[in-house]
Amino acid sequence: MGGDNAPLEIIKGTIAASKEYNASFILVGNAEKIKSIAAENGFDLRRFEIVDTDVSITMEDDPLCVVRSKKDSSMAVALKLLAEEKGDAVVSAGNSGALFTGASLIVRRIRAVKRAAIGAILPFTPPVLLLDSGANINVNDENLEQFAVMGSAYMRNCYGVMKPRVGLLNNGSEECKGTELQLAAYKRLSKNENINFIGNVEANQLAFNVCDVVVTDGFSGNILLKSIEGMGKLMIGEMKTLFLASNVSKLSALLVRKGVRELKHRYDSTEHGGAPILGISKPVIKAHGSSNAKAFKNAIRQAISVVYTGVTYDIAQEAEGFERKILEERNAKHEKDGEKKD
Amino acid sequence: MGGDNAPLEIIKGTIAASKEYNASFILVGNAEKIKSIAAENGFDLRRFEIVDTDVSITMEDDPLCVVRSKKDSSMAVALKLLAEEKGDAVVSAGNSGALFTGASLIVRRIRAVKRAAIGAILPFTPPVLLLDSGANINVNDENLEQFAVMGSAYMRNCYGVMKPRVGLLNNGSEECKGTELQLAAYKRLSKNENINFIGNVEANQLAFNVCDVVVTDGFSGNILLKSIEGMGKLMIGEMKTLFLASNVSKLSALLVRKGVRELKHRYDSTEHGGAPILGISKPVIKAHGSSNAKAFKNAIRQAISVVYTGVTYDIAQEAEGFERKILEERNAKHEKDGEKKD
Repeated sequence: MGGDNAPLEIIKGTIAASKEYNASFILVGNAEKIKSIAAENGFDLRRFEIVDTDVSITMEDDPLCVVRSKKDSSMAVALKLLAEEKGDAVVSAGNSGALFTGASLIVRRIRAVKRAAIGAILPFTPPVLLLDSGANINVNDENLEQFAVMGSAYMRNCYGVMKPRVGLLNNGSEECKGTELQLAAYKRLSKNENINFIGNVEANQLAFNVCDVVVTDGFSGNILLKSIEGMGKLMIGEMKTLFLASNVSKLSALLVRKGVRELKHRYDSTEHGGAPILGISKPVIKAHGSSNAKAFKNAIRQAISVVYTGVTYDIAQEAEGFERKILEERNAKHEKDGEKKD
Repeated sequence: MGGDNAPLEIIKGTIAASKEYNASFILVGNAEKIKSIAAENGFDLRRFEIVDTDVSITMEDDPLCVVRSKKDSSMAVALKLLAEEKGDAVVSAGNSGALFTGASLIVRRIRAVKRAAIGAILPFTPPVLLLDSGANINVNDENLEQFAVMGSAYMRNCYGVMKPRVGLLNNGSEECKGTELQLAAYKRLSKNENINFIGNVEANQLAFNVCDVVVTDGFSGNILLKSIEGMGKLMIGEMKTLFLASNVSKLSALLVRKGVRELKHRYDSTEHGGAPILGISKPVIKAHGSSNAKAFKNAIRQAISVVYTGVTYDIAQEAEGFERKILEERNAKHEKDGEKKD
């Protein structure tokens, strides 16, 4: 029931996915509405299970409502089904904050993960995973290190990158750049032998194959993600204006129309499918709020890929190692402090 | 002597400016080097005053060197000339941090301005002034309010916008979005009757005429500015690839070549000339480090426009009013606290 185009486009996307992928589907939402839309459009929903609930979360709702006032909402019910192992993944185009909160509190984080994060695949060649893209407005250096570990596992499993290059988003390439957060994170990331840290990266380098994973706090991650979206839209518009400016260029527009359409698809966020919420014990995928059927189908494809590659298991393994390391660091520090006192 | 292409491109840009604008110029730098480059290239420097110094600040130098170990550098000397009223504006393509520090400490801030800021004109239609674009990594809500006041004065004076619309960069449009900084700044900006505050703006809206001034901390401002630069470069590259993909599209490339060139110019930061450092008692303009002659000439043009429009005087007036308001607020608060105690 979530997103700007629910439930029509969500149902259409799920029907399309059921024809392409070997998976079964549970639709969670207002059964009456779902059935009447199916009847209006001539959809055959017999192959889907429908779990009925007439509550749904809006974009304006407080994220915590998913575990408080709206425990019976379609989002909360879907997450509970996942927690109870009645499904293998949840895909939702609804309120991001609520989905993130619900995933963390209902499905629960992987035991050793301190903060889950919403990963966004930036539309570059090769693709770059941005962590966090907006869920965690305030983070610390330990969180950023763990994002780097989780992001590396994701790019290894879902994109086949053997040694993912991790960059720290910063306002300059030098080690001394950034706020206290970046300075502390830089130190942590440099010392971590399980990741391939390449140092600070600036926002203007990301499109040009400098790293596979970029870590940052959710505030600046959101600014980055949205400015890429906005510029993509602006530049596609500029191209169209250029082609349509005269009859001569209308001819050339015909000639390169296919190319422009491909570009539009690449830089149009609805084409990338979903953003994985990493650090959750089972796959939860956030589809863009403006998802149409195709975008929602792509988010389902991404959920299936996360299930099959076992990236969640891999992240859990990594997180256990990370927790051990942090504990050892703290113990070493305590011992050292103890020695000093002696 | 600052920037990637000094002194050759700086000299060429200044010569070009001297032919176009009614202004006189002082070149500050290594006189021997300047003269030998002029001789090599057949430049006539007789119309320029040259102030000789053989020290210069590199991109790696600590910003504070401009007032400490490198007090005799070309940048420090130029700023001193400005402070002593031997010139009307300084333009430099050198180390941004050093120029910002030198402007604040040698030329000095306007009395009532707490923090100066580097403004960047984003390449949109209409243009949007971003404050701060990277100088102040950590700011408070009072600073952001003052940036809004200074930015409004700049857009009124230099771009003729009568009631500049001010937006607060945030990760969502709702009032409750952002970190503590954005929450506090939102309150301040809403209450300020001297500015036209339109609320939170998201990074993907900026290109589409939602505001004239966008305020944020220097860290996220830098991420925004650089991602716009990177995406501009990427998309121009995509257009070229598209046109050159086949012989058919090579033909169309010929047809729209002029348009693409214009786009490249618009989204190429070197075309926008300089970024004004607002809040300084005299005009100081930062030209991009990679400035070529044309970009440097544009930065000079911007400096001249700042001098002629008297924006510095306007900002000083506004800042006085702002300071009065803050003092009144504090006094009111003290009185209220006093009453409570009684």
